[in-house]
Amino acid sequence: MIIQSCPIPKFNFEMISLGHGSGGQLTQQLLKSGVFEVLKNDILDQQHDGAFFRLTGAVAFSTDSYVISPIFFPGGNIGDLAVNGTVNDLAMCGSCPKYLSLAFIIEEGLLMEKFWQVLVRIKEAAERANVQIVTGDTKVVEKGKGDQLFINTSGIGLIHPKAQIHHNHIVPGDQIIISGNIATHGIAIMSVRKGLEFETTIQSDTINLNHTTAKLLDGFGNAIKFFRDPTRGGLASVLNEVAAVTHWGYDIDQQLIPIEEQVEGACELLGLDPLYVANEGIFVAIVQKEAAGDFLELLRLDANGRNAAIIGAVTCEHPGKVVMKSRIGGRRIVTPLTGEQLPRIC
Amino acid sequence: MIIQSCPIPKFNFEMISLGHGSGGQLTQQLLKSGVFEVLKNDILDQQHDGAFFRLTGAVAFSTDSYVISPIFFPGGNIGDLAVNGTVNDLAMCGSCPKYLSLAFIIEEGLLMEKFWQVLVRIKEAAERANVQIVTGDTKVVEKGKGDQLFINTSGIGLIHPKAQIHHNHIVPGDQIIISGNIATHGIAIMSVRKGLEFETTIQSDTINLNHTTAKLLDGFGNAIKFFRDPTRGGLASVLNEVAAVTHWGYDIDQQLIPIEEQVEGACELLGLDPLYVANEGIFVAIVQKEAAGDFLELLRLDANGRNAAIIGAVTCEHPGKVVMKSRIGGRRIVTPLTGEQLPRIC
Repeated sequence: MIIQSCPIPKFNFEMISLGHGSGGQLTQQLLKSGVFEVLKNDILDQQHDGAFFRLTGAVAFSTDSYVISPIFFPGGNIGDLAVNGTVNDLAMCGSCPKYLSLAFIIEEGLLMEKFWQVLVRIKEAAERANVQIVTGDTKVVEKGKGDQLFINTSGIGLIHPKAQIHHNHIVPGDQIIISGNIATHGIAIMSVRKGLEFETTIQSDTINLNHTTAKLLDGFGNAIKFFRDPTRGGLASVLNEVAAVTHWGYDIDQQLIPIEEQVEGACELLGLDPLYVANEGIFVAIVQKEAAGDFLELLRLDANGRNAAIIGAVTCEHPGKVVMKSRIGGRRIVTPLTGEQLPRIC
Repeated sequence: MIIQSCPIPKFNFEMISLGHGSGGQLTQQLLKSGVFEVLKNDILDQQHDGAFFRLTGAVAFSTDSYVISPIFFPGGNIGDLAVNGTVNDLAMCGSCPKYLSLAFIIEEGLLMEKFWQVLVRIKEAAERANVQIVTGDTKVVEKGKGDQLFINTSGIGLIHPKAQIHHNHIVPGDQIIISGNIATHGIAIMSVRKGLEFETTIQSDTINLNHTTAKLLDGFGNAIKFFRDPTRGGLASVLNEVAAVTHWGYDIDQQLIPIEEQVEGACELLGLDPLYVANEGIFVAIVQKEAAGDFLELLRLDANGRNAAIIGAVTCEHPGKVVMKSRIGGRRIVTPLTGEQLPRIC
């Protein structure tokens, strides 16, 4: 385990204080006593106000802030979530993620041990995704003006040479594919939410998807019209968004949507529709009809795609709407998420 | 005024609620009812998980989170600060800033009118700096888990073809130049801090410096060894950092350091050493001795450099230390900032 290869260094302080965000000696001490060491790479080592590197060609650029509560959860912590989340946004753009920035907003009083555990997960996730953390920032706010730790990661990826991802390429007949079980992340977080704890073995599915999408792009190039990870807002929101911008209809079949039994049970218990529950380690792909079978076959060979399934198709009917055939055979419109189902899920 | 050309749109809501961070319909409504409109550009309009563009050559990449308190202050608000801050970090790398990401962490209950005022300043600052905001993110946290508004901006700039900025190029004899009055931003913020308010006309100097540095790079290329904006931690911290990495000594002369009378008076009143007070709209340059005079002349013709001055030189003496000749003639070591002088100044 990487955690054992990164023992917590001997800090001169037990917890983060406002001084660690001063830009002065304490900030330097924090960075030099562990952060730079654990995230070490040639570009970060330059220690300038920004990072320098060469880029040539088409790139994708993405940003996300992570405010998940609690910051530690079954299957991960805010650290790997923040790396995987931006890596995946870049992968969904059809790019190969290369460089990440990392910015902390820390609430005064955060224990160094917790901060260290987050850093170790960041390192591990960056290594797995094969991205470099090249620049960063550390701010500290007073106790009661934040919530332990918020992280922003922004990232740059190089567009895969075969990628032609754009919702404008979607046409009726294209197949809707989901790469794995839905609603896992949201339910894992809910199970440890204050006041809501319940017994379960469900773990967040947070993982990097960039190697999986790269393999699919290698194999199927412009047959892939669309990739999107259904995080906040769940599968229903992604399909509604793409329906709104393409003006096609989207038919899905409830029976085909993969979901773990335990997750489905928890959703029932909590009165949540799994279509709206957040995911982290899965994606939706919209693929040319002729290629969809082979695409699915390749995806199912990947560790991140074992439960992948074709769940429906794009249609000329009911433009702009998502319609689901239920298990008992009825059809209903899947509306966009209104309000907030699960705040601070990522 | 741009504020008048961007009247606040008719939102269906008076304040930000948790639902605006859901990733569902309310998030879309917030973005479509004003954010996309005010920040409009071709790349942002793609509305994907990330932005797409082409880049060729050496680039700089930088990130900063802005947690300034209060978010509105004399001379600006957190919006222009967040744009100018990252634009300037990129400029200090010797690059021409091109693309920014923009990520909000909003505390539930923030009035839409305040959010709108921030957005308008963001638009105005981006236009002035000639950068495009191409991708973004909006998260909302519960009341009491944030402090109105935090912003992260990350940015990409193209390295100026004549830039050879690296602290390794610094040698004894190089001149230390400051582009304007010090300590202005920090004192402007302090003057409106809760419990500390005092009467003053001092305004934050937040401004983009990229056009100024580009002009200097055009003219002086590799004679410029180092650029850095002395934000958090002030002039003392920047000089101590560069002293530590270059192992040269840095001599400065208090009498030559430009500071507005009112700011100096406020520092005395508050018991603050202006060398450690935060700045926003100035930079430190370290320039080859032979070029320094002409560099200063060109800089003083620029609106951002009217008060620029040579304040000292690099020396072989006292390696790794910053030494200041005081107005009355004595010499003292300027130590790095320990602890926190002014929390949440940027």
